[in-house]
Amino acid sequence: MISVSEAKAIVTKHAMLLNIIALPLDKALGYCLAQSVISKWSIPNFAQSSMDGYALQLAYRNNKLPIQDELPAGTSKKISLKEAHAVKVFTGGPVPENADVVIQKEWVNASATEIEIDEQKKLDPAIAAGLNIRKPGSDIQKGTVALEAGTILHSAHIAFLASIGETVVMVYRKPIVAIVITGNELVKPGNQLQDGEVFEANATGLSAALKQACVEAIHVLYTKDNLAETTACIQSALDLADMVLITGGVSVGDYDFVANACLNSGVEKLFHGVKQKPGKPLLFGKKENKLVVGLPGNPVSVLSCYTQYVLPAILQLSGLNTIKPAAAKLSVAYEKKSALCFFLKGREENGIVTVLPNQASYQLSSFATANCWIELAEDVYQFDTMKNVPIYYI
Amino acid sequence: MISVSEAKAIVTKHAMLLNIIALPLDKALGYCLAQSVISKWSIPNFAQSSMDGYALQLAYRNNKLPIQDELPAGTSKKISLKEAHAVKVFTGGPVPENADVVIQKEWVNASATEIEIDEQKKLDPAIAAGLNIRKPGSDIQKGTVALEAGTILHSAHIAFLASIGETVVMVYRKPIVAIVITGNELVKPGNQLQDGEVFEANATGLSAALKQACVEAIHVLYTKDNLAETTACIQSALDLADMVLITGGVSVGDYDFVANACLNSGVEKLFHGVKQKPGKPLLFGKKENKLVVGLPGNPVSVLSCYTQYVLPAILQLSGLNTIKPAAAKLSVAYEKKSALCFFLKGREENGIVTVLPNQASYQLSSFATANCWIELAEDVYQFDTMKNVPIYYI
Repeated sequence: MISVSEAKAIVTKHAMLLNIIALPLDKALGYCLAQSVISKWSIPNFAQSSMDGYALQLAYRNNKLPIQDELPAGTSKKISLKEAHAVKVFTGGPVPENADVVIQKEWVNASATEIEIDEQKKLDPAIAAGLNIRKPGSDIQKGTVALEAGTILHSAHIAFLASIGETVVMVYRKPIVAIVITGNELVKPGNQLQDGEVFEANATGLSAALKQACVEAIHVLYTKDNLAETTACIQSALDLADMVLITGGVSVGDYDFVANACLNSGVEKLFHGVKQKPGKPLLFGKKENKLVVGLPGNPVSVLSCYTQYVLPAILQLSGLNTIKPAAAKLSVAYEKKSALCFFLKGREENGIVTVLPNQASYQLSSFATANCWIELAEDVYQFDTMKNVPIYYI
Repeated sequence: MISVSEAKAIVTKHAMLLNIIALPLDKALGYCLAQSVISKWSIPNFAQSSMDGYALQLAYRNNKLPIQDELPAGTSKKISLKEAHAVKVFTGGPVPENADVVIQKEWVNASATEIEIDEQKKLDPAIAAGLNIRKPGSDIQKGTVALEAGTILHSAHIAFLASIGETVVMVYRKPIVAIVITGNELVKPGNQLQDGEVFEANATGLSAALKQACVEAIHVLYTKDNLAETTACIQSALDLADMVLITGGVSVGDYDFVANACLNSGVEKLFHGVKQKPGKPLLFGKKENKLVVGLPGNPVSVLSCYTQYVLPAILQLSGLNTIKPAAAKLSVAYEKKSALCFFLKGREENGIVTVLPNQASYQLSSFATANCWIELAEDVYQFDTMKNVPIYYI
């Protein structure tokens, strides 16, 4: 068995960035930009008014000025401001050639045919060359970098890219994930539970966790507990996906076929067994660049291992930032007798985290109130209420 | 004009919870549970082994015991343990009637026909009634509350509900949102930009922001700047959606038709104008329980108002928790001369937030590095580097 940190290092070493794809901008939220975006346009691409008002020349600021014309937003009309005239302009619309300033309409006395700047405002120091005029390229210049490669696209990045006319971005792909469910005792939720049967929660739970991580392409396969069927199922999963998550059958017992089925499927074993609770029999392997994770069968172990190993791998495959644990103080001191690293269901509130009752790996009921996992390091046995422990929000 | 806090209070007052719907469990991530879930089953529903090992009676712990039978996981076979015998059992499988304990196989010397507990382990104090046996109902009892109404479903809740056999949950609906884009100067990204034209970024930007909030049902409508078409478009949007977001045309100018079009569409105006920058002309109204938000045209203003007013309303409509601002210290002191509340594009790192250059409401380029909005209160003019200011992550 290896330590949690050794296991994490192995996952990190083997989770290779997926290939680059072209994605429509409206699908690109949350992806990592693989190539910098260079603006094809200067934005704005014309001298643009930032106010409803009148364009004029500073030299004539004290004069009554005839209204020469108007330039509503969206017009392609190009006009040149005549000397000692004003042109009516609009927010977002063009400013005529030769204009120095745009005076907002609130500062102007206007009739249908002429205007004059209000007496109170004529000497306002804000009236200087360029007032209320957005110069061409004053947001971004054509040919310059708009967004750097490596940017993880949030909604305002998407808006920015639309504003410079982009419709497609080059991003790192997100993994296709296949889930293989093993366990003869399992029946699907919604059925009647017979004696000896257990509701299958891992397909639903893992799919929800993957969705929470914005992984959309998820396949679920089911196999009975025998070597031939498990092997065939893992092979199908490897054909479908970049990452195969198997639940159950990963220990070394009469009905545990996952390790051998992986071997039969050509999966290189990278580790099997981690000094942790839950999730001690965790298996991690690789076939070409495809990652295979043999998770335990209990849903609590599955979700704990998901948080610690699967989610970081997914983020790394897609060029996304790993989630760093937060920190909180235990509400009550905790003593553990085992040399395993513990991941406990917890509830954090205002920086204080409570270890919930019902911590066994088959007990999901504590998830009703849990909002995080608490990590208690393997080589520490006494945890007091003074020092922070790492927590991972669910 | 009203203050930001007054405007927020009006939004809060009028954003009514949407109706309750039945949703398949695998679609329910991130929804608010509208009815408590009562478990229909005791889980586990049989005495279940937590180990691969042997079930026996404590009275015979020191004996050699013939192996009576085996009970693999998933079997519906019911057997009763004979006196002075052992039954081979498996993790997740049933334990026979009359058994007191399950001894893990690692503690047992077994031949094909009989077992004996290892000498080293015979006196282990862990060997006590109930060892490695999960009692029926020890995760949850039939008829008890599994999840309380009001729970916002994360992935582990979904797993828990699957584990008790649920397939459908009653949740508050999320809003259908219609976006109405006004502005004669706008062309869609991907086109050639003619003089006087601006790329339309609000449909893409708002859609991305809504997706980031897990709102899926989004309609986008476009209208030219005239009263009849704007009115018709807002009416169509009201027919489609629970919430109508309009961009542009919300000031009081020759080409601003949104306020009148709202009036013509029977929208009750709740406020128009907020003491803030950007987003001063913000309009908020209501028709029956449908919310209408008239946003400015500049994408920066749109996204700022989205964060401050639209997102909180969406969360409230769906029974979800409002996002509280975080806090950070300004990297450099900031002075503002205006009595408006400022929302500035910022970049927060390690608790220090920097006001980015290019803050004008038409300048999206600073979103390249921005990760938050900084709020500078309306009635404060000097902001030093010692006190925290509220920030909202993008």
